[in-house]
Amino acid sequence: MASIKPSVPKGTRDFSPAEMARRNFIFDTIKSVFRKYGYQQIETPSMENLSTLTGKYGDEGDKLIFKILNSGDYLAKVDADKLAFKDSNLLISEISEKALRYDLTVPFARYVVQHQNEITFPFKRFQVQPVWRADRPQKGRYREFYQCDADVVGSDSLLNEAEFILIYDEALSKLGLRDFTIKINNRKILSGIAQVIDKSDNIIDLTVAIDKLDKIGLDGVIAELSNKGFTIEDINKLKPVILLEGSNTEKLESLRKALANSPIGLQGCDELETVLNYIKATPLQKGLLELDITLARGLNYYTGAIFEVKTNEVQMGSIGGGGRYDDLTGMFGLKGLTGAGISFGADRIYDVMEELDLFPSSAVQGTQVLICCFDKDAESYALPLLQRLRGLEINTELYPAGAKIKKQMEYANSKQVPYTILIGSEEMASGLLAFKDMTSGLQEKLTTGQIVEKLSK
Amino acid sequence: MASIKPSVPKGTRDFSPAEMARRNFIFDTIKSVFRKYGYQQIETPSMENLSTLTGKYGDEGDKLIFKILNSGDYLAKVDADKLAFKDSNLLISEISEKALRYDLTVPFARYVVQHQNEITFPFKRFQVQPVWRADRPQKGRYREFYQCDADVVGSDSLLNEAEFILIYDEALSKLGLRDFTIKINNRKILSGIAQVIDKSDNIIDLTVAIDKLDKIGLDGVIAELSNKGFTIEDINKLKPVILLEGSNTEKLESLRKALANSPIGLQGCDELETVLNYIKATPLQKGLLELDITLARGLNYYTGAIFEVKTNEVQMGSIGGGGRYDDLTGMFGLKGLTGAGISFGADRIYDVMEELDLFPSSAVQGTQVLICCFDKDAESYALPLLQRLRGLEINTELYPAGAKIKKQMEYANSKQVPYTILIGSEEMASGLLAFKDMTSGLQEKLTTGQIVEKLSK
Repeated sequence: MASIKPSVPKGTRDFSPAEMARRNFIFDTIKSVFRKYGYQQIETPSMENLSTLTGKYGDEGDKLIFKILNSGDYLAKVDADKLAFKDSNLLISEISEKALRYDLTVPFARYVVQHQNEITFPFKRFQVQPVWRADRPQKGRYREFYQCDADVVGSDSLLNEAEFILIYDEALSKLGLRDFTIKINNRKILSGIAQVIDKSDNIIDLTVAIDKLDKIGLDGVIAELSNKGFTIEDINKLKPVILLEGSNTEKLESLRKALANSPIGLQGCDELETVLNYIKATPLQKGLLELDITLARGLNYYTGAIFEVKTNEVQMGSIGGGGRYDDLTGMFGLKGLTGAGISFGADRIYDVMEELDLFPSSAVQGTQVLICCFDKDAESYALPLLQRLRGLEINTELYPAGAKIKKQMEYANSKQVPYTILIGSEEMASGLLAFKDMTSGLQEKLTTGQIVEKLSK
Repeated sequence: MASIKPSVPKGTRDFSPAEMARRNFIFDTIKSVFRKYGYQQIETPSMENLSTLTGKYGDEGDKLIFKILNSGDYLAKVDADKLAFKDSNLLISEISEKALRYDLTVPFARYVVQHQNEITFPFKRFQVQPVWRADRPQKGRYREFYQCDADVVGSDSLLNEAEFILIYDEALSKLGLRDFTIKINNRKILSGIAQVIDKSDNIIDLTVAIDKLDKIGLDGVIAELSNKGFTIEDINKLKPVILLEGSNTEKLESLRKALANSPIGLQGCDELETVLNYIKATPLQKGLLELDITLARGLNYYTGAIFEVKTNEVQMGSIGGGGRYDDLTGMFGLKGLTGAGISFGADRIYDVMEELDLFPSSAVQGTQVLICCFDKDAESYALPLLQRLRGLEINTELYPAGAKIKKQMEYANSKQVPYTILIGSEEMASGLLAFKDMTSGLQEKLTTGQIVEKLSK
């Protein structure tokens, strides 16, 4: 067999033990908070029927879906004339009927419709699985990455929105983040803004421009709005809304005035107020809640609340987002089922925690004790101690005898094992084993009983 | 958008919350035992370069690998003449350069070679990820399923083999299995058996026949051996080996006599004895260890110990298997690295536990308490209690107000929530809330303090 220089496909990654321990810490923390709020885990297959995915992500999205070649003689039934065209797009449906999921949302919608008779609504589910996109790989953008979503369908209560804010706050606080902002907006307020200047048809242009306030400033936004046909009068009406200031309550008050003539805008204000009141009753830990009317992500999709989360400790894109949508399952024929959901950006959260050195040492769920033996006799002596420690649920290893102690210590260091026990002829004769704290470097002679007691703490 | 009747591709599955809770119980238990024995988790990408996988699983295996269609205009560079042949096999390498992993072993070998300079050996890794095979789906056989592997590379110590037996025993005992057999054999003993009848070249025929003893009995095995050219004399020499009886120690004694003229056979006996001695020092919990020389799985692959695990409580194929291999990474150019590994058959273990009703109720990591409100006022009253219980790490939900209590109770039942708290105007006036144990049906009136105390236990 020819030797191949091994590598992984571009845009994909191996995760080492150290990386996995940290990733598990993030995922386990988020999952435990999801569960605490009554969300239950589901999993869907990595492959979906191509027809389930096609047409759900726009033309650009369709191109980024990884298609799976039919197995067997996939060309057998393809028309020879069709082949001669060499039209890649035309041929796809002939040679591929399955594809890798592109996100967790469309598979979830498919799941809800397919299993609607087994589900008790409201259905609160979370899902943590990889997704695949044939995007051009670049720093921080991968072709395989995990999404981490929680959604509730079949409940229009704004308590759900409030609880999503609490989930963000609790999960990120538990991960050790100290300063982050949970931004909230409402699609109905954006509709209201468009309505009061009588430009409902131009809501996309309007929100796309406002969304850039952070990047291009007020003058930039005004220039873009003019460009898109908004009049000076429109822009003057918009200015106080764009430049909204003060506390969330003050902002809401100003908005109510500005949107006084828009029923849908006022409804958005009411919804926001309800959510803010829920949060007043249950204060946040480390998160700041900020009403931000420039927030417009996924506008075509969201119909009510819109969320986005940003850390204020390092420069980084959003680490979470979500909102309410009124027609998730309509694409599969189940109409009128309202839902809301949020997502955690696990890769970015990882990078933030790495940069801020926030991973606790306990996040390394590794070996606690390494027993090092000088020879085969010591190994036999060590076996009962090994199993006794494991019986106490202490992760313990016995380095296979035969290696030099120096090599055994290097092994302990590379795995960041906090304690080692050395056993040689002297230790066996005296019954006092050399117990070493690898962090402090301190070594003491202890009986097995004393060691067990020390490690059981 | 046209409405599509939603389904999943054949051979794939959705996992509901109840199924996920049970699957998590299995995976979490196995992972915790892997960790206890010093194994560390890694993950590799779902996609590998097609060249990494091709040629590793035989011709039949190659056909079962799911190939991923190149993205973009995948036909652009394909020669028109080549297309005209309509040869599916010939075209694959032109239109597909990536594939879904077929098992965890080849990606692990690739990982070890690629990262050899970052790894401290012996390297003990575990991996729990899905694999994909374009097999014909049937009962218990899926196109996407999880594998659950632990391997050590870079250590020839037989302590590793002994610890794999302990891992099987501990994990399956923890899962609640009460009667299972861990079978062990050694490839060198099989080589020795072939050597003593001077049929080393026919070892495959020999082991394939012996392997069927359970199914076709001694007469069947003899018939098959005759068929394959083994003489009466050969068969007479083989009989006592095939019909080996007694304790493991007795079997080993008989084997030593039968293999007296085979150096490799005796080496196999020595290895087995060492492993058995390790286990004598650390008795098993629920597992039986059985030396079974008919065990020959993966013969071309294993070079030392061979393992297989079977439950004795229900009829089911093997629920685990593994062994030692001396050249895992040779296929990627890294020679002479010995390794050993085992695998748990998670889907079969699930089926066994389901059939024997072994899943503990604690395996459902769901909501512990549902707070049910008669109206909006009750909801406001309930919020502080909700967050207080969550603060105690109790999974708690507040059913969004507005639904009839009957519907809220149905929700609690469908999610198997063990406790509910009912709040209406009477409860708010008295401060005594209706606390219901959903299992016993008992309901009592308690203060929030009393409820918190009860649930904190």
